[in-house]
Amino acid sequence: MPSARLLTYAQRAENHHNPAAKALLETIGRKKSNLCVSVDVTKQADFLRIIDVVGPYICLVKTHVDVIEDFEFSMIDRLKELSAKHDFLIFEDRKFADIGNTVALQYSSGVYKISSWSHITNAHPIPGPGIITGLSSIGTPLGRGLILLAEMSSKGTLASGAYTSQAVQMARAHRDFVIGFIAMRRMDGVGAEGLDSTDLANEDFLILTPGVGLDAKGDSMGQQYRTPREVVLESGCDVIIVGRGIYGKGNDADIQAQAERYRKEGWAAYEERISVQAS
Amino acid sequence: MPSARLLTYAQRAENHHNPAAKALLETIGRKKSNLCVSVDVTKQADFLRIIDVVGPYICLVKTHVDVIEDFEFSMIDRLKELSAKHDFLIFEDRKFADIGNTVALQYSSGVYKISSWSHITNAHPIPGPGIITGLSSIGTPLGRGLILLAEMSSKGTLASGAYTSQAVQMARAHRDFVIGFIAMRRMDGVGAEGLDSTDLANEDFLILTPGVGLDAKGDSMGQQYRTPREVVLESGCDVIIVGRGIYGKGNDADIQAQAERYRKEGWAAYEERISVQAS
Repeated sequence: MPSARLLTYAQRAENHHNPAAKALLETIGRKKSNLCVSVDVTKQADFLRIIDVVGPYICLVKTHVDVIEDFEFSMIDRLKELSAKHDFLIFEDRKFADIGNTVALQYSSGVYKISSWSHITNAHPIPGPGIITGLSSIGTPLGRGLILLAEMSSKGTLASGAYTSQAVQMARAHRDFVIGFIAMRRMDGVGAEGLDSTDLANEDFLILTPGVGLDAKGDSMGQQYRTPREVVLESGCDVIIVGRGIYGKGNDADIQAQAERYRKEGWAAYEERISVQAS
Repeated sequence: MPSARLLTYAQRAENHHNPAAKALLETIGRKKSNLCVSVDVTKQADFLRIIDVVGPYICLVKTHVDVIEDFEFSMIDRLKELSAKHDFLIFEDRKFADIGNTVALQYSSGVYKISSWSHITNAHPIPGPGIITGLSSIGTPLGRGLILLAEMSSKGTLASGAYTSQAVQMARAHRDFVIGFIAMRRMDGVGAEGLDSTDLANEDFLILTPGVGLDAKGDSMGQQYRTPREVVLESGCDVIIVGRGIYGKGNDADIQAQAERYRKEGWAAYEERISVQAS
């Protein structure tokens, strides 16, 4: 099998065994959108309004439910309704980073009960494989998928080099539940020295990439931006994550226009990638 | 000035400029307790009851408020009352691990408003220095202190070697707000190649150490345990963090007995450390 980079999203959906990864790949193909919008606002009403506006243009919404001041669990019901109405998946960007026993509680319990509604969540590999075991004990029976942070988009990040390789190795050992990475590029072959090449060719990790922007180069707290073309075509990533670049400006019509703009750019970069590889 | 390891907690309190670090060191000296109890239960009533029982024996309580199912903000008022009643500080073990803009919101806002009640919190250095800038923008005006995770106690952790050195270097560049580390040993001299030795001798990072237990060697999800003596005397750490080893067994009298047992062990190890160094 050729590298996942050379396949269409639909082809990859057929081959994937994890229910969340399969659903995401199918959604991307069906909606012609590899756009994930990251909605970091602090009021329920803004949160739901923005998601309703961008819904038609996205495959995935990325949330930080713990920044919402007037959170009530009924907001999750509204979010699930929007997910059904507009056909997108939900990704709570929790960045779990604790030992197995603790993350299992944080994932399943508490006010947010993330595992009950978020198709995909993510974790830092720092604590070691126990974090995957802990999250998988909750998420696998529910058909959820986990994204590991192999790299970050922020300035001076320590997620590079040997750290990144170890993250990928940890993911490879848990391919049923770990469906991909937060990374700036494809991870094909990373940390794979000495492994069987046939086995490697069959692996399909989704690459979700933050720090995507068309109009800004960075913020004052170390975030750095690249364009959809750089991310999808040049670096071979699968999903572009855009935040303030979409919802940060103007009224609903502006937000809608920005969402469509990013969807179009991200999809064009993917189509070019596929055509380049085919020629 | 000699290494912090050679000084009493009271001497270190006098020299420290960060209000949270100063208060913690004073509390340790006043209560003759370097014990932090980590309370990971999922019901408000259990949470408050355990803290009321262990309160007299601890300098610090470590919380994961996001695992409490029936959380209401009034629980925080009760926690603050217990903190005043029993004279201990509060450490929300949030393990922030996102970019600066996001962690600033997660720290100050949302349901939990952590910065409004937690004297100390912690963060992974992975995202780069922006995470400190983001948290400091909220915490410094409130007199809070930040602990960086330089190491972890779990099996297969990636927080070692160059990662740990970079964490310490990041802390050194923000000594007003970063007051110490989660680590398994002192960080004196780590990542300090080429730095001025007088300046280094004046630094005083608190070392808070998880994975402490007297009766167990580990759990099924990769947590590993060492004794208070190993941690405080041999490795020079300042605060021992104990969880299920204290509250995991029996009734209130048992919990109280375990808390006093760990307090005594931790304090004896500290007194031996000081006397060994003085002789």
